Amino acid sequence: VKHILIFGAGRSSWFLINYLINEAEKSNWKITIVERNKDNEILQSLKSNVLEIVYGDVSNPKEIEPLLVDKSAVVSLLPPSLHIIIAEMCIDKKAHFFTASYVNDEMQKLSERVEASNLLFLNELGLDPGIDHMSAMRVIDRVREEGGEFLGFESFCGGLVAPESDNNPWNYKITWSPRNVVVAGQGVVKFKQENQFKYIPYYRLFRRTERLVVPGLGEFEAYPNRDSLDYINPYNFASIPTIFRGTLRKPGFCRAWDCMVQLGLTDDSYIIEGSRNMTIRDFTNSFLFYHPTDSVELKTAFYLKLDRDSDEIMKLQWLGLFDSTPLNLEKDASPAQILQLIIEDKWKLEKTDKDMVVMLHLFDYMMNGVKKRIKSYMYVKGEDSIKTAMAKTVGLPLAIAVKLFLQGKIRSTGVLIPNFKEVYDPILDELETLGIVFTENEEKL
Amino acid sequence: VKHILIFGAGRSSWFLINYLINEAEKSNWKITIVERNKDNEILQSLKSNVLEIVYGDVSNPKEIEPLLVDKSAVVSLLPPSLHIIIAEMCIDKKAHFFTASYVNDEMQKLSERVEASNLLFLNELGLDPGIDHMSAMRVIDRVREEGGEFLGFESFCGGLVAPESDNNPWNYKITWSPRNVVVAGQGVVKFKQENQFKYIPYYRLFRRTERLVVPGLGEFEAYPNRDSLDYINPYNFASIPTIFRGTLRKPGFCRAWDCMVQLGLTDDSYIIEGSRNMTIRDFTNSFLFYHPTDSVELKTAFYLKLDRDSDEIMKLQWLGLFDSTPLNLEKDASPAQILQLIIEDKWKLEKTDKDMVVMLHLFDYMMNGVKKRIKSYMYVKGEDSIKTAMAKTVGLPLAIAVKLFLQGKIRSTGVLIPNFKEVYDPILDELETLGIVFTENEEKL
Repeated sequence: VKHILIFGAGRSSWFLINYLINEAEKSNWKITIVERNKDNEILQSLKSNVLEIVYGDVSNPKEIEPLLVDKSAVVSLLPPSLHIIIAEMCIDKKAHFFTASYVNDEMQKLSERVEASNLLFLNELGLDPGIDHMSAMRVIDRVREEGGEFLGFESFCGGLVAPESDNNPWNYKITWSPRNVVVAGQGVVKFKQENQFKYIPYYRLFRRTERLVVPGLGEFEAYPNRDSLDYINPYNFASIPTIFRGTLRKPGFCRAWDCMVQLGLTDDSYIIEGSRNMTIRDFTNSFLFYHPTDSVELKTAFYLKLDRDSDEIMKLQWLGLFDSTPLNLEKDASPAQILQLIIEDKWKLEKTDKDMVVMLHLFDYMMNGVKKRIKSYMYVKGEDSIKTAMAKTVGLPLAIAVKLFLQGKIRSTGVLIPNFKEVYDPILDELETLGIVFTENEEKL
Repeated sequence: VKHILIFGAGRSSWFLINYLINEAEKSNWKITIVERNKDNEILQSLKSNVLEIVYGDVSNPKEIEPLLVDKSAVVSLLPPSLHIIIAEMCIDKKAHFFTASYVNDEMQKLSERVEASNLLFLNELGLDPGIDHMSAMRVIDRVREEGGEFLGFESFCGGLVAPESDNNPWNYKITWSPRNVVVAGQGVVKFKQENQFKYIPYYRLFRRTERLVVPGLGEFEAYPNRDSLDYINPYNFASIPTIFRGTLRKPGFCRAWDCMVQLGLTDDSYIIEGSRNMTIRDFTNSFLFYHPTDSVELKTAFYLKLDRDSDEIMKLQWLGLFDSTPLNLEKDASPAQILQLIIEDKWKLEKTDKDMVVMLHLFDYMMNGVKKRIKSYMYVKGEDSIKTAMAKTVGLPLAIAVKLFLQGKIRSTGVLIPNFKEVYDPILDELETLGIVFTENEEKL
């Protein structure tokens, strides 16, 4: 009997787990979920006789290894750094492996061993990376088949709050890893425009935005997303003149977030002396010049060259950066750790809040001497703070991939990502039936 | 017979080598210098029958180890990362060791073994670190003996070009490691002011300057220098309300250098695609938004929110950042590597140029209920591009320390820095006779 082993039942697991339980019940498969936290809410709500729940920790291999024996597919929803531990065990126990995370160097290095064992390690099966690859490659392969030559590829994605639950001046709530929200963009940004390679340091990133409209949702701003050049090889774009990936926010978010970058609040490289006994106001003041009487508000506005009543200062004030609320830390922490606590509190997705995922691709290409642009976009809204659009778009493609594999519909082996038809076609088709639908427009340029 | 082994005869070695040869001739000591580069100019000019020159590479231990046998003192002028190799050999061969570099964690960890072997590893014997410790600790110890209690310690140092050789709009030429000029300030800056810990991210550093006057030399600006909190322990300043270290430049330098930071030119974390075939103008343009016709000059001024004829843009222009000069690289390089090539060329200290080293300490303290400030300052000018003030102030304290040690006047053991009287008193006294003189003023606050 086919048996799926799932590691982790965190923030983005609801749809994945429920989809696979449903399929398992139909097909007489079994599912085992391994989770560290015994108070996990999602697991407590599950009832199924195909399901077994094991509470255990991946860092204890003796406990974990026996679970991998005779498993048809292993799924990891754990933090990316833990995948490699499971991946090694999968090779050992001849189990196929599925994740929604980037293929890092460690994973890539397993490639030969995975192929030699006739295994499939399919990664980047979530939203971004995941649905972005699949939806883009479907259009790219089609245009290429029709004889088109690409001039530019721009792709945008954002995890946001749905308009109906949007009740704060940042137009933002946290729907994925709060730590990743804090450190987003750290490192250098690279892209290519009109055959020129372009580089942006972290501390200019949130001032290099562009505006764009998503039909039906209105205006967004996008800041460049990490190394767009990483997408040249998997998309076979060696000679494309323009390639750019961006992250979507509602207009005004980035210039206010940049204030926190400029102050130094997103730095995770050192610990602030005495921060456990600080107020949030003291924390903010740690980054401002000393003065015996000038207020933190005025020093902040002055330092950032902003009006005292600017949108940016109003946003910082709403976040509580000037409040005398004690941080109450157990021990001294880094700026990034402290900022995470602040935003987790203020940008919390409330139980009945709906989140929203937005994706937009722009494909510019030359076909029979005519320059054309295809705009392809998708958005999904969540139902509440557990059945989020984020959980849906990260979990469903992964779940569908596992199902297709167990049904014998995916036969490739190796360390792969879903950039090829055998995988993206059936997944995108099924996602459409589940409400994750791309709309396409084409225009002459 | 006493025998000194010196590694490296680079940029700051002239005074050290000549001082020690002179002492060796007087006292019948021997000197061996190990240098990698057979074309070394400084070595070619030396003649002495106490001197032996060996051309060899520290990365080849078989070649190097025999040289350490029966040496009374070993001096390393090599790049700091190489000290540890020599330090290990010194323990092995029971040789005492002297450097002008910071004690890093690796060196500190040798402490027990060094003490167990009754050896002295004396570090931080240059200018900064070096003369700064010695000159500050002499005042600090004296004030403490007299019953003073410290309220604040601020210390400033700069390696600059002397006014008579200052003929560029940056008022700056390179007198030490050009790579360190490029990456100066990277990492986070920490200090303490009126009992508040303060933190500045790299990308705001060069806009957080203060102005100060050095008597006889006029006005300077200072930007905060790395982690001033590192000086709390060695100076026994656990409860001092204010501690700050700064780097001196001529006014206007920092805000122009900040332009290069803001563009991203100082980043050493990645390689620019295709940079080997770029012009300097292309290089600058890599960091600016794409436009088919807008000029690099205008885009730069716009991006930095500067007037087209501002001092900052004039300084960038003088450096050649808008020139269509080919970079002519052997292979693609990082922004920092490319910027280094540009400034090495433009900020070169010419053969007859004189450099200048400036140091200034401010000690605030309470004595018998009265608040007082001691200002202690020093400056030295170089003679030419080899006999620089930098080489003098880095090399002489190290040379004097070695001499004093060989004369039996320093008897401490362990991994140490010159923050104690046995070392700083005789060195500072002798430096005075060599023209490195601190002037002190005291005032009530």
